[in-house]
Amino acid sequence: MIYFRSDYSQGAHPKVMEALMKTNMEHTDGYGLDVHCERAAQMIKELTGISDCDVHMMVGGTPCNVTVIAASLRPYESVIAVRSSHVYVHETGGVEATGHRIVAMDGVNGKLTPELIDRAWDEYEDEHTLLPRMVYISQPTEIGSIYSRAEMTAIADKCKEKNMLLYVDGARLGAALTCNENDLTIEELAGLCDAFYIGGTKNGALFGEALVIRNAKMNDHFRHMMKRQGGLLAKGRLIGVQFEALLEGGKESLYFEMASHANKMADILRSGLIEMGVEFYSDSPTNQIFPVFPVKVVRELEKDFFFYEWAPEKDGMIPIRLVTAWGTEEDDVRAFLSRTGKLL
Amino acid sequence: MIYFRSDYSQGAHPKVMEALMKTNMEHTDGYGLDVHCERAAQMIKELTGISDCDVHMMVGGTPCNVTVIAASLRPYESVIAVRSSHVYVHETGGVEATGHRIVAMDGVNGKLTPELIDRAWDEYEDEHTLLPRMVYISQPTEIGSIYSRAEMTAIADKCKEKNMLLYVDGARLGAALTCNENDLTIEELAGLCDAFYIGGTKNGALFGEALVIRNAKMNDHFRHMMKRQGGLLAKGRLIGVQFEALLEGGKESLYFEMASHANKMADILRSGLIEMGVEFYSDSPTNQIFPVFPVKVVRELEKDFFFYEWAPEKDGMIPIRLVTAWGTEEDDVRAFLSRTGKLL
Amino acid sequence: MIYFRSDYSQGAHPKVMEALMKTNMEHTDGYGLDVHCERAAQMIKELTGISDCDVHMMVGGTPCNVTVIAASLRPYESVIAVRSSHVYVHETGGVEATGHRIVAMDGVNGKLTPELIDRAWDEYEDEHTLLPRMVYISQPTEIGSIYSRAEMTAIADKCKEKNMLLYVDGARLGAALTCNENDLTIEELAGLCDAFYIGGTKNGALFGEALVIRNAKMNDHFRHMMKRQGGLLAKGRLIGVQFEALLEGGKESLYFEMASHANKMADILRSGLIEMGVEFYSDSPTNQIFPVFPVKVVRELEKDFFFYEWAPEKDGMIPIRLVTAWGTEEDDVRAFLSRTGKLL
Amino acid sequence: MIYFRSDYSQGAHPKVMEALMKTNMEHTDGYGLDVHCERAAQMIKELTGISDCDVHMMVGGTPCNVTVIAASLRPYESVIAVRSSHVYVHETGGVEATGHRIVAMDGVNGKLTPELIDRAWDEYEDEHTLLPRMVYISQPTEIGSIYSRAEMTAIADKCKEKNMLLYVDGARLGAALTCNENDLTIEELAGLCDAFYIGGTKNGALFGEALVIRNAKMNDHFRHMMKRQGGLLAKGRLIGVQFEALLEGGKESLYFEMASHANKMADILRSGLIEMGVEFYSDSPTNQIFPVFPVKVVRELEKDFFFYEWAPEKDGMIPIRLVTAWGTEEDDVRAFLSRTGKLL
Repeated sequence: MIYFRSDYSQGAHPKVMEALMKTNMEHTDGYGLDVHCERAAQMIKELTGISDCDVHMMVGGTPCNVTVIAASLRPYESVIAVRSSHVYVHETGGVEATGHRIVAMDGVNGKLTPELIDRAWDEYEDEHTLLPRMVYISQPTEIGSIYSRAEMTAIADKCKEKNMLLYVDGARLGAALTCNENDLTIEELAGLCDAFYIGGTKNGALFGEALVIRNAKMNDHFRHMMKRQGGLLAKGRLIGVQFEALLEGGKESLYFEMASHANKMADILRSGLIEMGVEFYSDSPTNQIFPVFPVKVVRELEKDFFFYEWAPEKDGMIPIRLVTAWGTEEDDVRAFLSRTGKLL
Repeated sequence: MIYFRSDYSQGAHPKVMEALMKTNMEHTDGYGLDVHCERAAQMIKELTGISDCDVHMMVGGTPCNVTVIAASLRPYESVIAVRSSHVYVHETGGVEATGHRIVAMDGVNGKLTPELIDRAWDEYEDEHTLLPRMVYISQPTEIGSIYSRAEMTAIADKCKEKNMLLYVDGARLGAALTCNENDLTIEELAGLCDAFYIGGTKNGALFGEALVIRNAKMNDHFRHMMKRQGGLLAKGRLIGVQFEALLEGGKESLYFEMASHANKMADILRSGLIEMGVEFYSDSPTNQIFPVFPVKVVRELEKDFFFYEWAPEKDGMIPIRLVTAWGTEEDDVRAFLSRTGKLL
Repeated sequence: MIYFRSDYSQGAHPKVMEALMKTNMEHTDGYGLDVHCERAAQMIKELTGISDCDVHMMVGGTPCNVTVIAASLRPYESVIAVRSSHVYVHETGGVEATGHRIVAMDGVNGKLTPELIDRAWDEYEDEHTLLPRMVYISQPTEIGSIYSRAEMTAIADKCKEKNMLLYVDGARLGAALTCNENDLTIEELAGLCDAFYIGGTKNGALFGEALVIRNAKMNDHFRHMMKRQGGLLAKGRLIGVQFEALLEGGKESLYFEMASHANKMADILRSGLIEMGVEFYSDSPTNQIFPVFPVKVVRELEKDFFFYEWAPEKDGMIPIRLVTAWGTEEDDVRAFLSRTGKLL
Repeated sequence: MIYFRSDYSQGAHPKVMEALMKTNMEHTDGYGLDVHCERAAQMIKELTGISDCDVHMMVGGTPCNVTVIAASLRPYESVIAVRSSHVYVHETGGVEATGHRIVAMDGVNGKLTPELIDRAWDEYEDEHTLLPRMVYISQPTEIGSIYSRAEMTAIADKCKEKNMLLYVDGARLGAALTCNENDLTIEELAGLCDAFYIGGTKNGALFGEALVIRNAKMNDHFRHMMKRQGGLLAKGRLIGVQFEALLEGGKESLYFEMASHANKMADILRSGLIEMGVEFYSDSPTNQIFPVFPVKVVRELEKDFFFYEWAPEKDGMIPIRLVTAWGTEEDDVRAFLSRTGKLL
């Protein structure tokens, strides 16, 4: 079975494992109060060019999203996001569990726009209605598309106009930053938002996301919130050690190298499928692509390849999700194209 | 200033006040454990023909909706409702405050349909997603429309198919039951759903809603939930006394008489406006109508009449909400038509 | 059956009912945005001598307590209260439902002390522990005792030292202010705390409590919080109208007159029982007293009198609660003493 | 600096790291749905002799406790625990964040008793009070003491009598099972409770706890709850792989070997200190001991040794916590005794 199911089907990149082995017998204090987390934070500040910020090592994407939202909003405040976003669709109501609504808007190619934010605001009136206070977007989006510099700037401007916080989920940030279409640097992204995270789990770490909070108000007693939400890992240094290994070398680091490889593998898949005339569920330049196949083809492919069906069948067609990662091998990609070519 | 702002701008119908006066010096036990609440419950069982149910006297619509949902759902379960529903738009996240999501669907003339329920279910996959478990509708809807017997039956069937609970918000139930278009009796409605309430606040009571729970599972420790949600009134008998006054006489009672009057006043308004060629934001046969006027006309009307602007201006037009009630006088209705006629 | 069960077993004082009748047919805006609520607020500002505050008309004590706490605290903050307090014992976890802990301390005659607050703080360490941020007390306490001026001042000082908010539940505030032992005026009380409420339900209103918030931070978007917690009554003016009637005349108003009567009735009961050598569960100078009787006596008394058993039997004795109110008649009090005298 | 601060100051036992390295490049499905988690679950069923149960791989102790409680209780239900318990003191209100109260009782040497459970029940009356539904204990307790077979059986019996669930937090279960005083086997413990967990983080894993649920009702949609609470790790197999390595060999496995070593190191510390006449804050036979030292001694010791001060100074004395672990070396233990001997 060849895996295109997710970018977290293997362990960690060997260099990450090596770093964990090398530091394994050290004694450090717990809960992220150690020299490795400190160094990783420093590396992130240098990488993003943002020195005045707080960095927290989070266990995973869902606890990161939920903790940020719960820590930032008052009880009567809501988050605006697209209906296809991870935080809305795939977190089993983790945000609602903290008492907050996600105001879900139908996105445009998976993306939010200033117009959609305005429309969400149309629902606000007075004390009888929830007050939108945060915009959640992810870069890339849940369906692989990316915000251009102009698009993200427009959203950031709209947030300022409405006195809203802008939070960027970067579970696959590496894929966005290293894809061919991207025109938004990590420094620019960091400068536009109030908080964002650099995802480790989906780019070669065992687990862990590095959350960067620029807006000091969002950071108030943040570690209390992490503990309360169950997200303060006892051996917190594990995340610090991994990010040291991932980010050593800054823009030339393993992190960007791995993301770039994943994108390259997706590029081969995408162009191969386009040549065969395949259509796509979304317009994605990153490491997730969503070709739409006849049901019969899907039934054949799933015998040898492991992937998600992304949406219910419609008119005999099903969109599937193919994900490539740091460990995806070109031979496997070629095998998929070859098999698909024969089936179509 | 003439009020078309809401159906709760006056106190209670004089007969309700009289009942409160007459029983005022009685001593009873608190929290709804008294003979008046008991008698009112009995009257409701007779009116609906449903003897095997539990009746709870609730202070208002929002605590009623929130308590029912919080008492019925497990933490990972959600409620499907239309996006224009009261529970979604006008309760400041009361439901989310209990940890549950309202899956908001764009309604058809303010109504939910089996197709929309199916579409909401398309978002459910497995443990990564919320499990829809209740359908919330109101009769009439937030924009005055009503479900026909066929429509509500189709929704009830869909709920059974999906193992979902059906809950009907009856804040203005009287208006639905007594309007000209209605073909659904209160017995039929009661028989189709798992729980519903008969609204008092918006039909001549000082306050109070009578919640009827037919599904015993939803009633498990329900009074604990009422207290926890802050909805167990110390002098609970006040609601019982009012419903005794409202429902004395069953289908010939004050409750139906008042609702019928409100509808009649709305009918006059509606047909008068139709004659003038006015268009409406929704198709409503009940005591709330939503004519759409040029901004200038609205600005003139609001000098003498008090009402809500229902939605933001669009192309120079604004939909307003006109509500009639048990105390609305025909002269005031005529005054509105006359003034509007001159302005258009 | 003679009622000593609670101070909310009857309707409202006839003058309150009269005010409701007189204003019944007025049209006003809903949700407490009306001239009666405004006037009542003004009367309260004059009565307390605190002009720079916000007044909210709340439906009942539990929603008032819960909304104040939920509106004032961040998610990782807790409330310190005595274990016998209403908010801890008798609100079915309404506070926990909003995500906050009540740090329960064993009180001294039902009261909190600066030493107990210090001991609660001993449990705070860092991000692994909850941060105490509010002190909740009630005046009088749940077992009838009252804070002297010196005692409440000491608590207020401790709150300032620890950067905590002081909130006073005044469900029976009238009873405290008019009892013989009291040396704390309403102006002084208002000046010592950040927020408190003047209870209506237990002193002659149908329902309703007037919440006074002096600390502007606690008032931020407070009406949003009221709605979210289900506590914004549609016909909010009902509470305003009642408080107008209750407080007309300030210190000479019906409110103080009724509380004073209730205390006088309790005084007769108390001194009668003391003469018989009865012991008490708590030292209470207000309208609730807690005599401890042999089980057999309780079983006889409950045939003619309706009251609560306050705690489980211990060594053959049971403490019961006797409550007097504005409507308690001296004959009934005498009947209780006479019957008890024969039984002991 | 020598660490006696916690049993999670190092990485994982080398054999655990080896297992992670060996499986690192495998592709598996995510979220714990893989062969390693399955095998680890099977090993746990064999070890405990409980085949009819569900095993979930949890990231850490706090998310495990919180998820179990949130999944098992209805909103108006509470948990009884001792006031010194981890779930009450050191989880920053994680349980309250899900809307549940922990009814905190002052423990006896850190332990709950049937009498304390009865006393907690005295606070339950009716719908105005929370209904106790779960007992939370840990084995060993937060201050190192253990329940004997007789003690835990008595608690289990009391739970059955009161229709309560019994949940055992086993963060340091290995230390309890392998200490000299213990007379309760893992099979017996598993048979007495409704759910418990085998802690990995504090006994040689990088992280991870294996939750065993015997009561099927508690397992209903449990994975939905795990996701909702942010505790479903993407690379869930990491926990499975670690438990395979920890439990290979059953009672002769690395898990018991490491716990036994930790206890042996604590035994040396304890007996050395007893010889010096040192007194202890608690009676603990496991790998955490709490000697009480004069402030001056603590100030000297902390220059070379890293540990927690467990409680505020009192009469010039401070209790500290010394924790030993799988990686503690006897030389370090001897160094502590030698240094302390000189200071006393």
